Amino acid sequence: MSSTVEIAQEFAALCKAGKFEEAGERFWAEEVVSVEPMEGDMAVLKGKPAVKGKSAWWYANHEIHATETHGPYVNGDQFALRFHIDVTQKQSGQRMQMEEVGLYTVKDGKVVEERFLFRMG
Amino acid sequence: MSSTVEIAQEFAALCKAGKFEEAGERFWAEEVVSVEPMEGDMAVLKGKPAVKGKSAWWYANHEIHATETHGPYVNGDQFALRFHIDVTQKQSGQRMQMEEVGLYTVKDGKVVEERFLFRMG
Repeated sequence: MSSTVEIAQEFAALCKAGKFEEAGERFWAEEVVSVEPMEGDMAVLKGKPAVKGKSAWWYANHEIHATETHGPYVNGDQFALRFHIDVTQKQSGQRMQMEEVGLYTVKDGKVVEERFLFRMG
Repeated sequence: MSSTVEIAQEFAALCKAGKFEEAGERFWAEEVVSVEPMEGDMAVLKGKPAVKGKSAWWYANHEIHATETHGPYVNGDQFALRFHIDVTQKQSGQRMQMEEVGLYTVKDGKVVEERFLFRMG
């Protein structure tokens, strides 16, 4: 079983290479829970198929110009990554510079929860 | 009762002004739990007096040259801050550039848990 530090570093390396979907495919547990800081249908998603669906929705509806991944930051069974995303919402045409922290909880070598915190200051 | 966003922004503003102890004094719950990514006696501390004691130990044993606080990042009842700390351990004389994420959980307008994730990549 890989340690949280090892998983954090492999997960981070994939994100730094722009391979976000590969990181999820490889490390999401089947019962993964994903929590976004928003109201509505996509605030909490349960299960790898649902979380992959959100990912597919994101890529279909956003044009990503650039991403930066920083970290990992580690404590016990959790690690965090920090993302900068330069992205245009296709529907509105609005270009945004997003900054967020992804907080990941590891159990039995897999990510069982991901939780995104958006920068508000 | 202040919202998590309001508390996050006030807490961040105090940290950005270097007023870390004031931030704790004002926002730590009496039953606050503090979790550091280390083994040993200070890994998990419970209760405001114990957490204040850790803080006092930190300031007594480190010379802080500069700090930077970034954020807050918010999701639900949690917020995160990112810290850069330029510090010398007094005992060893070793100067370090530390980078960490502080993850705070808010309940009833107070911080009931703080958890620090250290940069490892």
